Amino acid sequence: MSSDSIGTHRVLAPAGALPQNAARLDTRPELWPDEVRVRVERLNLDAASFRQLTEKHGGDGDAVRAEVLAIVAARGKMQNPVTGSGGMLIGTVEEVGPESPLGLVVGQRVATLVSLTLTPLVIEDGLARWDGRSEQVPADGHAILFGRSIAAALPDDLPAELGLSVLDVCGAPALTRRVVDGYAQPVVAVIGAAGKSGSLSLAAARRAGATRTIGVVPHDAEAALLRDAGLADAVVVADARDPLALRDAVEGAGGPADVTVVCVDVPGCEPGAILATAPRGTVVFFSMATSFSAAALGAEGVAADVQMLIGNGYVPGHADYALDLLRSEPGVRRLFEDRL
Amino acid sequence: MSSDSIGTHRVLAPAGALPQNAARLDTRPELWPDEVRVRVERLNLDAASFRQLTEKHGGDGDAVRAEVLAIVAARGKMQNPVTGSGGMLIGTVEEVGPESPLGLVVGQRVATLVSLTLTPLVIEDGLARWDGRSEQVPADGHAILFGRSIAAALPDDLPAELGLSVLDVCGAPALTRRVVDGYAQPVVAVIGAAGKSGSLSLAAARRAGATRTIGVVPHDAEAALLRDAGLADAVVVADARDPLALRDAVEGAGGPADVTVVCVDVPGCEPGAILATAPRGTVVFFSMATSFSAAALGAEGVAADVQMLIGNGYVPGHADYALDLLRSEPGVRRLFEDRL
Repeated sequence: MSSDSIGTHRVLAPAGALPQNAARLDTRPELWPDEVRVRVERLNLDAASFRQLTEKHGGDGDAVRAEVLAIVAARGKMQNPVTGSGGMLIGTVEEVGPESPLGLVVGQRVATLVSLTLTPLVIEDGLARWDGRSEQVPADGHAILFGRSIAAALPDDLPAELGLSVLDVCGAPALTRRVVDGYAQPVVAVIGAAGKSGSLSLAAARRAGATRTIGVVPHDAEAALLRDAGLADAVVVADARDPLALRDAVEGAGGPADVTVVCVDVPGCEPGAILATAPRGTVVFFSMATSFSAAALGAEGVAADVQMLIGNGYVPGHADYALDLLRSEPGVRRLFEDRL
Repeated sequence: MSSDSIGTHRVLAPAGALPQNAARLDTRPELWPDEVRVRVERLNLDAASFRQLTEKHGGDGDAVRAEVLAIVAARGKMQNPVTGSGGMLIGTVEEVGPESPLGLVVGQRVATLVSLTLTPLVIEDGLARWDGRSEQVPADGHAILFGRSIAAALPDDLPAELGLSVLDVCGAPALTRRVVDGYAQPVVAVIGAAGKSGSLSLAAARRAGATRTIGVVPHDAEAALLRDAGLADAVVVADARDPLALRDAVEGAGGPADVTVVCVDVPGCEPGAILATAPRGTVVFFSMATSFSAAALGAEGVAADVQMLIGNGYVPGHADYALDLLRSEPGVRRLFEDRL
């Protein structure tokens, strides 16, 4: 069987599915001509997925580890069956097929920027070095990249963990920049602004010409961190799941927002984000906890003329742009380092 | 207590909820200054809700009627507790508060374009004229519209049922027009093109300047209907749940599309819609079966630089625009009348 660039040749079931929607992938280490095999060093689980697993098992790290192993063994990839999400990985290029278009070389240390939900993966060490209590999972095994996969070389000037945590969310600032570029002097609100994608999105918004940036955080401790970072013109505390509280917080800080960026990984933030956004404004949902129907019906229910974007993690140049923001914005770097 | 335009003053429980998420609404007939009271003539239950009730009661119409009455009495609105969905209603304007911004006048016959899930409702006739076996529910009672609700006058020149079925999907063509307007001479593909929202979206795309319109349908019978209607430059048959088949069908018909509009109410259409769309193109998801994570991860997984919109059912002027398309496009009208 010949390969195709999106990897359907590795789908074992169901027939006709793409790798992401597949129930099970072929993880054989032998490469098709346009593939790359990576020796895995570390997995970085998606925050929503890790939270779901942790809550399901009441914080029992051994049980979380056992379930991750079971998922990968059963599906040939790390895709949480409840959240549908995965994460990413870092590793070292082990073999490059002669027709691979990715430009990688053997021995290069890389991060995959496509989701683990579509990456053939074998874990060989039983995750023995992981306690099941962190999204960062030391692992040994192999993974496969397709012709149209995306991988970025880990930057030499940054610690690996720091580089990885930036690359993990690099789609958010790139898309925020593009959306903010579409408005003249917009007010931009970022919900979950002290987090990784939130702080990068704030920095991107300011650089793209936001006239005012509003950072919304869930409690005073994060507010203090974000104020210290100096990334937002206003920092406000609000529960993003309380629609009126969120609307009032953003309005009180200089809103409504022309662009609202949702980076909070908890369900139920759609109505508040919609209410906090001005007519003809845009809400960008990056959280994997977003409900399509809650957003669609929520906007209609309050006659909100807002554009709502599903946050696409791929924008050309996203990795370089995010790394550049981290290097040039001390406040972003501080927030990232605080979380490592 | 003063009112607010999204109706939180009518929420009895739980505190802080929006009307749509509320367990119970205040249905008193006395109006706050920005409200409107409508004398109800007919409810139009959401298809998913009606199916659930019918199946639960084994097709016993009396039991279905009793449960609808019980739901409305308990919640003060018609929101199916299992499906979460409602429907819409038609009626006659009975009283208009002095500060209502909706522009309605007493005696006008209207359809509500916000969901029954957030509309305070009292049923006064015990639904005596309904046999419990149809989504169309003759009813007498009253309903309340808020300042930010949406209602459209039923057109005099169209049968009520035809007008209602257009208003039910009127957000789709309005948003399609807006998106198509953002491109110069785009190719537009509509998935599910022979349906109600699909045919209106096709007509809107052509009128908004699409250089080529492609209608995708699931089988030959719909293809014949759509060809007869003359709304698409190309009509192709493909299973929208098969990503490669959908991509190939759209490409073979003159794609990839700059704008892809998804109007098929089945799960699993996200990957194919993304693959059928050109770089820097836009996918508009109108189907309530859309999965947020499938779309977000699907685009990232194939490195697709496409914009993805959550179809907002509200765009200013949407009702008039959709009715105008029905009146001026004989092909659209024929498809609608075939479905009544």
